[in-house]
Amino acid sequence: MKDAHDEVRFRVRYQETDRMGVVYHANHLVYFEVGRTELMRKRGIRYADIEKEGHVLAVTEARARFLGRVTYDDEIAVRTSIKPEGKTQVRFEYEVRVTGEERKVCDGYTLHVFLGPDGRPMRLPGAVRGVIERMQRGGGHEDGA
Amino acid sequence: MKDAHDEVRFRVRYQETDRMGVVYHANHLVYFEVGRTELMRKRGIRYADIEKEGHVLAVTEARARFLGRVTYDDEIAVRTSIKPEGKTQVRFEYEVRVTGEERKVCDGYTLHVFLGPDGRPMRLPGAVRGVIERMQRGGGHEDGA
Amino acid sequence: MKDAHDEVRFRVRYQETDRMGVVYHANHLVYFEVGRTELMRKRGIRYADIEKEGHVLAVTEARARFLGRVTYDDEIAVRTSIKPEGKTQVRFEYEVRVTGEERKVCDGYTLHVFLGPDGRPMRLPGAVRGVIERMQRGGGHEDGA
Amino acid sequence: MKDAHDEVRFRVRYQETDRMGVVYHANHLVYFEVGRTELMRKRGIRYADIEKEGHVLAVTEARARFLGRVTYDDEIAVRTSIKPEGKTQVRFEYEVRVTGEERKVCDGYTLHVFLGPDGRPMRLPGAVRGVIERMQRGGGHEDGA
Repeated sequence: MKDAHDEVRFRVRYQETDRMGVVYHANHLVYFEVGRTELMRKRGIRYADIEKEGHVLAVTEARARFLGRVTYDDEIAVRTSIKPEGKTQVRFEYEVRVTGEERKVCDGYTLHVFLGPDGRPMRLPGAVRGVIERMQRGGGHEDGA
Repeated sequence: MKDAHDEVRFRVRYQETDRMGVVYHANHLVYFEVGRTELMRKRGIRYADIEKEGHVLAVTEARARFLGRVTYDDEIAVRTSIKPEGKTQVRFEYEVRVTGEERKVCDGYTLHVFLGPDGRPMRLPGAVRGVIERMQRGGGHEDGA
Repeated sequence: MKDAHDEVRFRVRYQETDRMGVVYHANHLVYFEVGRTELMRKRGIRYADIEKEGHVLAVTEARARFLGRVTYDDEIAVRTSIKPEGKTQVRFEYEVRVTGEERKVCDGYTLHVFLGPDGRPMRLPGAVRGVIERMQRGGGHEDGA
Repeated sequence: MKDAHDEVRFRVRYQETDRMGVVYHANHLVYFEVGRTELMRKRGIRYADIEKEGHVLAVTEARARFLGRVTYDDEIAVRTSIKPEGKTQVRFEYEVRVTGEERKVCDGYTLHVFLGPDGRPMRLPGAVRGVIERMQRGGGHEDGA
């Protein structure tokens, strides 16, 4: 992941594993959610505040590749970056790694559209466009690389 | 479970297991949810309709005992009964069994309060009181015992 | 979905919704899981039996598009088809629809690899190749279209 | 909670909410899990290591009271204490609070039994008895109260 990105770390919960002994694959999409929430928070956007204004950021597409084993109590690092996708969509990209190892266990992206109070797609809110522009100019955040 | 009750059957999903190889304990509370939704449906109450009227049935307490092993693809039967608990609460009781075996793998109860559009506790809706009365008079449903 | 496929129907649980009022997107991957479990069961393969033999069917990739609103108590139909993907992978494709409406609310695919007891990729078990061949010859199951 | 306890803080995920707009009740049991994992870790026991030795800590009972509203992005604090329950069981007690407010949103307990490699109940491992004794003597950890 060459673009500016943010990283958040936390541990895998027992609940997130399955009887194969590893994280149930769909839970990586939940880790992606934590990644984008924290990316926005560090850039000054609390997603909960966006919803208070009547807007929602609906997921329109998700893709993930499952590349390696990760299980209970492993500490993982989710790296997230953000890009525009046309006029009304946002694209987040993710990498999930086990900390302390170089091993990438999952990567993927999600596409999102902002919906207004009427449930229809709207232009990206200015605050979100600002975050994207700052990240594309090369980071602007101490975790950026 | 001597009272009149309903039964609903379905299979355990892989997602619901954990790396101990069995159903993660908290998922039994989800099975309880399926039990009470179906009990109400069979008695003519669609819980989704209650919410359309601005009421919600909030869980105030839950207790479960985990009594035996149950895992992926096992077909389980959830037996549910309903009782009043004071003027504003409802008590659902549950048993989860693996079908085709006598083995009970979980039992427990949940308490619920109806909240009105203002978020405050309200009397039980008439339709719900009706269900309770019919069940207490001895069933009124083919699955009752 | 023009290929032979299977269909399984069930209702959305309250637990699967989020505060946007709809199914949390990652839960569609759980619905996909139910789709492929039931497709295999109807063709005579109990996936739990495959694991008893020491093999697992690990997910290597998943993609989903979220196309419409679906919420608590909606009955959904998951249509699933299966294809080979090279020598060691299997591809399942899915559509999730709200029953009684033409509306498709999600589609996507998952890729899987069979791992042997040593954790390494293995050729597809003969039983699975048989299922794929029968489906590709035009169905062989009453739900096929 | 007067006994010595540990506290762990984290934020509610969107995935954990339901369409009532709050945390789905069963997810509090997952928060309890995080509480006991961290309590043990801070006292020098990595639960994952216990499993490596072939022992598991199975939940035999859980009870929770849901006392107040908590939703997405709220930071919560889970306070956990541990006690023996007879010769073979352990009791964890929990409180979940929204940080920065005095509001308790959930409390409860879980009972657990240690199972040996043969799947049968065993005496508490010495390391776990040590943790309980130190906590009962008045804490021994900076977060204790």
